[in-house]
Amino acid sequence: MGIGDDAAVLSPEELSLGRLVVSMDSLVGDVHFPLHSSGYDIARRALCVNLSDMAAMGATPRWFTLALNLPEHMAVDEWLADFSKGLGEIANPHNCALIGGDVSRGNLALTITIIGEVPADQVLTRKGARPGDYIYVTGTLGDGAAALRLVSGASGDLMDRRLYEHFYAPKPRIDEGLILRGIASACIDISDGLLSDLSHICANSEVGADINLSCLPVHSGLKTNYSNSFLEWALSGGDDYELCFTVPSERVAQIDSLVRQGRIDATFIGEIIAGKDITLISKAGRKLLDRRAGQYRGYNHFV
Amino acid sequence: MGIGDDAAVLSPEELSLGRLVVSMDSLVGDVHFPLHSSGYDIARRALCVNLSDMAAMGATPRWFTLALNLPEHMAVDEWLADFSKGLGEIANPHNCALIGGDVSRGNLALTITIIGEVPADQVLTRKGARPGDYIYVTGTLGDGAAALRLVSGASGDLMDRRLYEHFYAPKPRIDEGLILRGIASACIDISDGLLSDLSHICANSEVGADINLSCLPVHSGLKTNYSNSFLEWALSGGDDYELCFTVPSERVAQIDSLVRQGRIDATFIGEIIAGKDITLISKAGRKLLDRRAGQYRGYNHFV
Repeated sequence: MGIGDDAAVLSPEELSLGRLVVSMDSLVGDVHFPLHSSGYDIARRALCVNLSDMAAMGATPRWFTLALNLPEHMAVDEWLADFSKGLGEIANPHNCALIGGDVSRGNLALTITIIGEVPADQVLTRKGARPGDYIYVTGTLGDGAAALRLVSGASGDLMDRRLYEHFYAPKPRIDEGLILRGIASACIDISDGLLSDLSHICANSEVGADINLSCLPVHSGLKTNYSNSFLEWALSGGDDYELCFTVPSERVAQIDSLVRQGRIDATFIGEIIAGKDITLISKAGRKLLDRRAGQYRGYNHFV
Repeated sequence: MGIGDDAAVLSPEELSLGRLVVSMDSLVGDVHFPLHSSGYDIARRALCVNLSDMAAMGATPRWFTLALNLPEHMAVDEWLADFSKGLGEIANPHNCALIGGDVSRGNLALTITIIGEVPADQVLTRKGARPGDYIYVTGTLGDGAAALRLVSGASGDLMDRRLYEHFYAPKPRIDEGLILRGIASACIDISDGLLSDLSHICANSEVGADINLSCLPVHSGLKTNYSNSFLEWALSGGDDYELCFTVPSERVAQIDSLVRQGRIDATFIGEIIAGKDITLISKAGRKLLDRRAGQYRGYNHFV
C-alpha cells in the first residue's frame, strides 16, 4: 500500500513457509560517521550496515523504514536529494523498498529498520557451530579499521578510494548469506572485529575455536601501507561487515566448490573445537586468548 | 527466537490471511518532550505515540524494536531501569514484545518501529470516506495542546495529573481500532490536530467535511480552565492521539449501539460531504476553511 497512511501495509510472499527477520541500527553523527560526511555517504553507510545484519541471517531484505533526525540548516532540498540518491543506490539493487519513516528536527542521527524473509528451516544464527566445523570469512579483514582511520582524518591517505568506499558503502553480503542457507552451521557479520564476533558464535554454540593467523585474508594494500597494524585490525578492528561462518566438515567440499566457481569470496581461517577457548595459531606458537581480560575486543599484538 | 542474533526472527500468526502493518516514529529530546522528562515518562510517551499509529490502521500490535540515543551521563543503571519500567508498563498490556534494537551514544532521542497484523480486508486507512458518512472522534479533544503547555512549564498547573498523564501516556486506541475493523470507512489518529488530520482523510478519500463545533467533545476541566483556548486546541492543537473515523450511514446504528454499551468512547462531530472543503458550523454561522491558507493547522479563533 502506498505512502500516506499512519503505517505501511505489507503482504509478505514467502510467509506461508517462512519467517520474518527484523533488524534495527542507529547511526549517530560524530559517533558512527564524521559530521563532515555528505548526505549521500551517510545514507549509503546506514543502509549497508543494516543490510549486513540481514546477510548474517541468510535473509532476503524486502522493506525498510527510516527515521532521520536533522538539524534545521541541513533540512534543505540539496542535502535531502543527495541523501535520497545514496539511499536509492544501495536499496534499489536489493529490491529493498522504503515503506515509511519519520523526519524530525534534531542532531544528525538516523535509524533504519529492515524487514526481510527467510524460509523457516534455513535461518542462519550464531548457534549451531559444532567441533570439527571449518571457520570461514568472506572478503578481507582489517579494512574497516583502516577506513575509519582514513575518514576520521587521522591519515593523509585521502586518495585510497577503496577504503573510502569501504567505510561509506561496505558491501552487504546478502548474496553470500543466501548461498550459505542450508550450508553454514552458524553465521555472524563482523561489526566489532573478528575475535569479538566469533566469540559470539562460540558462546551461543558452546564451543571454542582455533584461528590460523597465516590464513587471515588481508588486502595487499593494507599489508603494504600498515604493516605494523594490519594483523591487529584484522583480528579486532571492527567495521568490516564481512560474514564469519562455520561449515560442517561434510559440506566443506561444497563451499570449496562455490569458491572455485567464484560464487562466494570466502577464506578458510580455522576450526571449531570443543571447549570454550579461542586460540590464535602462528608460526611463533599458540596464544590462548583470555575472554575475561577482554582480549577478543582489545586484542594486543603478540606475533 | 530469543535476543542475541543480528536480527529478530518472527513467526506471524494471522499471516495466511493477513497483512503486516509497520510504523516508525522518532522522539527527539527538547523537540518532542522536555529534556527534564524522566526515563519512565519518555519510554511511555514514545511507545504510546507509536501504538497510536497501529490503532489508526485497525492493527493488532505484535512486536517492536527500539533505538535509543543516550548521552553518556544518562547511560546509568538507574535511568535505564526507569526507562525499562515505562516501556514494560505500556507494552505488556498490549502483548507487544520488544524484539531488538540498538543503544548508541548521542543526544537524547529514541526511535520505535512497531509491527502489527490485520486481516487483509479489514485494514483501516485514510481512503474510503464517502459523502453521507458520519464523522466521529474517540475520547476528548484539546487535551494534547493543554498538556503540552503544562509539561513545557508555561503553566503553573503542575497538579493536573490528568493532563500530565495525557502527555506522557496518551492512551493508544488499540481496542477501538479493532472494534472499528469492518465498520469504519476511513480512520486516522489525531496527532497534528483534528482539522489537519481530518484533511488527510478528505484528501485521500476525495471528499469534504462539515464539522459541528457544538458537538466537539472537550473535557469539562479544559472548558473551565482554558475557556479562551479550548476550542482552538480541540480543532488544531495536536498531540491528542484520539481516532477520527468515518462511518457509512447504514452502520451508524451499530456505532451508536457500541457507544451505549460502553465498548467504544466515541462522539459524532459532523458529516462527510461531496467536494473538497472543510466547513465549521456553529450557532454563529458557517465558516469555510481555506486549506491553501493553512487554516487546518494554524487555525485562528473566530467564534
